[in-house]
Amino acid sequence: MINLVLCGGSGTRLWPLSRKLLPKQFVTLFDNKSLFQKTVERNQAVASRLLVVSNTEQYFLAKDQLIEIKHNDEYYLLESVAKNTAPAIALACLGLDEDDVVLVTPADHLIKNEKAYYQAVAQAKGLAGQGFLVTFGIIPSYPETGFGYIQANGNDVLAFKEKPDSQTAQSYIEAGNYYWNSGMFCFKAGVFLEELAQYRPDLLQACKVAYAKHISEGNAVRIPFELMNAIPEDSIDYAVMEKSQKIKVVAADMGWSDVGSFDALSDELPLNEQGNTILKRGEADVPVLTINAHNNMIVTRNHAIAAIDVDDLIVVDTTDSVLITKKGSSQKVKEVVAQLKRIKPDLCDVHRLAYRPWGSYEVLLDTDKYKIKRIIVKPGKKLSLQKHFHRSEHWVVVSGTAEVTNGDKVLTVRPNESTYIPMGEVHRLENKGKIDLVMIEVQVGEYTGEDDIVRLEDSYGRI
Amino acid sequence: MINLVLCGGSGTRLWPLSRKLLPKQFVTLFDNKSLFQKTVERNQAVASRLLVVSNTEQYFLAKDQLIEIKHNDEYYLLESVAKNTAPAIALACLGLDEDDVVLVTPADHLIKNEKAYYQAVAQAKGLAGQGFLVTFGIIPSYPETGFGYIQANGNDVLAFKEKPDSQTAQSYIEAGNYYWNSGMFCFKAGVFLEELAQYRPDLLQACKVAYAKHISEGNAVRIPFELMNAIPEDSIDYAVMEKSQKIKVVAADMGWSDVGSFDALSDELPLNEQGNTILKRGEADVPVLTINAHNNMIVTRNHAIAAIDVDDLIVVDTTDSVLITKKGSSQKVKEVVAQLKRIKPDLCDVHRLAYRPWGSYEVLLDTDKYKIKRIIVKPGKKLSLQKHFHRSEHWVVVSGTAEVTNGDKVLTVRPNESTYIPMGEVHRLENKGKIDLVMIEVQVGEYTGEDDIVRLEDSYGRI
Repeated sequence: MINLVLCGGSGTRLWPLSRKLLPKQFVTLFDNKSLFQKTVERNQAVASRLLVVSNTEQYFLAKDQLIEIKHNDEYYLLESVAKNTAPAIALACLGLDEDDVVLVTPADHLIKNEKAYYQAVAQAKGLAGQGFLVTFGIIPSYPETGFGYIQANGNDVLAFKEKPDSQTAQSYIEAGNYYWNSGMFCFKAGVFLEELAQYRPDLLQACKVAYAKHISEGNAVRIPFELMNAIPEDSIDYAVMEKSQKIKVVAADMGWSDVGSFDALSDELPLNEQGNTILKRGEADVPVLTINAHNNMIVTRNHAIAAIDVDDLIVVDTTDSVLITKKGSSQKVKEVVAQLKRIKPDLCDVHRLAYRPWGSYEVLLDTDKYKIKRIIVKPGKKLSLQKHFHRSEHWVVVSGTAEVTNGDKVLTVRPNESTYIPMGEVHRLENKGKIDLVMIEVQVGEYTGEDDIVRLEDSYGRI
Repeated sequence: MINLVLCGGSGTRLWPLSRKLLPKQFVTLFDNKSLFQKTVERNQAVASRLLVVSNTEQYFLAKDQLIEIKHNDEYYLLESVAKNTAPAIALACLGLDEDDVVLVTPADHLIKNEKAYYQAVAQAKGLAGQGFLVTFGIIPSYPETGFGYIQANGNDVLAFKEKPDSQTAQSYIEAGNYYWNSGMFCFKAGVFLEELAQYRPDLLQACKVAYAKHISEGNAVRIPFELMNAIPEDSIDYAVMEKSQKIKVVAADMGWSDVGSFDALSDELPLNEQGNTILKRGEADVPVLTINAHNNMIVTRNHAIAAIDVDDLIVVDTTDSVLITKKGSSQKVKEVVAQLKRIKPDLCDVHRLAYRPWGSYEVLLDTDKYKIKRIIVKPGKKLSLQKHFHRSEHWVVVSGTAEVTNGDKVLTVRPNESTYIPMGEVHRLENKGKIDLVMIEVQVGEYTGEDDIVRLEDSYGRI
């Protein structure tokens, strides 16, 4: 079985933890792992191959996170523009044998009851082998109005239902044969493509045209922008599942959550003795003190938090932003993000800690005239050959060893050594060693924006 | 008239804004000024001389803050150990002429109605000229139980009252002739010393012995530790005011607050259209968003804050810590500080931004193996001649010009230039220029604690 992980989401529903460039599936939340990492690990037990559908920006993030959990031999399908789930799955299936059984899973869901999950997957695999398109239904624990429902009779699907109002949701719960539509599927690649051919031949045709021109780069397949952009947008539900006659459902109570809000996150984390949920996400153990404070969720990375006489709050602290919301109101984070997009879009898009194909950097201080960064380059990686018009750079290596191209010289910079890149000079930074290269960069210049960069050569196709 | 500003407090009642090394009077709160600065500016209109009583640690902080408001020609009395207000005032008066009229004011109170204040001061000055010890009474606006009261009949004091219970406080308000004891006084230096001689001759004698051995350093008078330590501890109220027969009171409604808690601070700041109080304390304009949030006070320096569906909260965000408390509960900050003192005392004592005699530094990143600081050296200042056993230092000048002693060499380091101080090398940093020297320091070593410093020569008596 092949695990197809749909990883293209770019939500900010967990702002300030999630950002446009670090969406929910990549945020470290449970057991010091991301939901993407947990998804991959969970499916390793049942799938022999991993195919990640992602976009170019998130490709390196996914790669790094797989290295962290020591996963290798994965494949990537890189979409240059998102067209919803039907094209993503179709393009993936076009690269497989028709008899390959595919387990399609989102990257950003939590499943706590793995035993129930594996039982459901086994049942779905059996049905998929018989030529059915299988969808997974979650036995609902309360009348949620934010999900679609599947009305079922055993494994037979009677109907797909849109997000209900609360009265309808209540009636679904009482009826007992309605399940949350989880967005997980299992089928043979060939069966899916046949059904797509029947119900959305135009979409399949556009996918075939695009896939025919795919670019292979190692274990990644990239679809060119123009062809990807020509594919109609549609979800697998609308395009196939709600129309096909070959649908089955497998219902399970697998401790599932889409962690779609901080309230949902709070439900999944344990309470301490004071009835508070404390999530410390950083390297350092910062104090979180609660005095007569109950039923709060407090999330922090590197700041101390003290809460006095407050109840039912959600407090989420990151390096640059703090969210404080009443429990039950965390859906309104989207209003915050909408406002921020207008007045300070950076806070929606990136963390001060940003991931790059070669590693990461964290902005320690940013002023008009200078900017300080900690740069971490992973073993074997190099930044682009580049120059800047408006800034000089001072580099101090604090750990690992750097190979630095500085004009026409190439030099080795060891821990506790430094080098200087004059304004306009062509330069490159590389880590040829076996451990992370950690470097402090002091930029000095009239303008230190990230866009003052001329790339002359790049290993990651960013020219 | 001489304004004697008592500036020795070291409270953390406004933690995380105030710390042991940056007490309330020095925190920038109103109009981008500290209460100390506002006190000095207010009294400049009525006093011809400024005498600041402080301790060695806060001396440079006070000096810097006076430079910021362009005040000069002040004098300092530096206590090497705090002995409460009676010795502080006695030592100050011993350095004055007996007919000098002294206006004693705490450094950490807010006075909003300056007209009423100046009227009260004028009246007090008249009474002081007639040989009275004058105390200032604040016409109470509510039955506060945290202050002492003065029972009066016109300018005559009938009795000093300890902090009352709430019923007693209520009866004081109803009686109408009880005033809050403000801790402000006005008298001739000679009269105060005569009265002290009568009621605490031992204390006066110890002060005389100590003052006789004072050390003059420019405009500062320093009392040696052993002699200061031998002075009995007492307040001016207990030692003199509650016993003397020469007491008068001047009562006024001067818009006074001791800003003794975040609730008190909140009362003094304006509400915005949503009924929230927003105080932005940093250089950058960070977003503070409120969505259906009312009657909250939100204080921040360099982090964005978003508040959703929350009311009546106090949120105080600093570079390293966040306080969230229900309004009305901010006195419990002391419980937070008590807990922090045990588990993470640094967070009670210092900000990541620390003031030094020569300027300031801010820790940007602190790890086991390296530490990054931004160092600002004021014009004409120099750090001590020093060395470190466990760390090397890389210095990058980003603004201003540094004169660097590095072993037996002295070199000039200009903006966008750097230098390197090897482990164990004797070095010194000096700003001989006219503008601030701003420098990024990258420390690399197995141990980067502040106590790995051997001072060989110091302009500030720190050897």
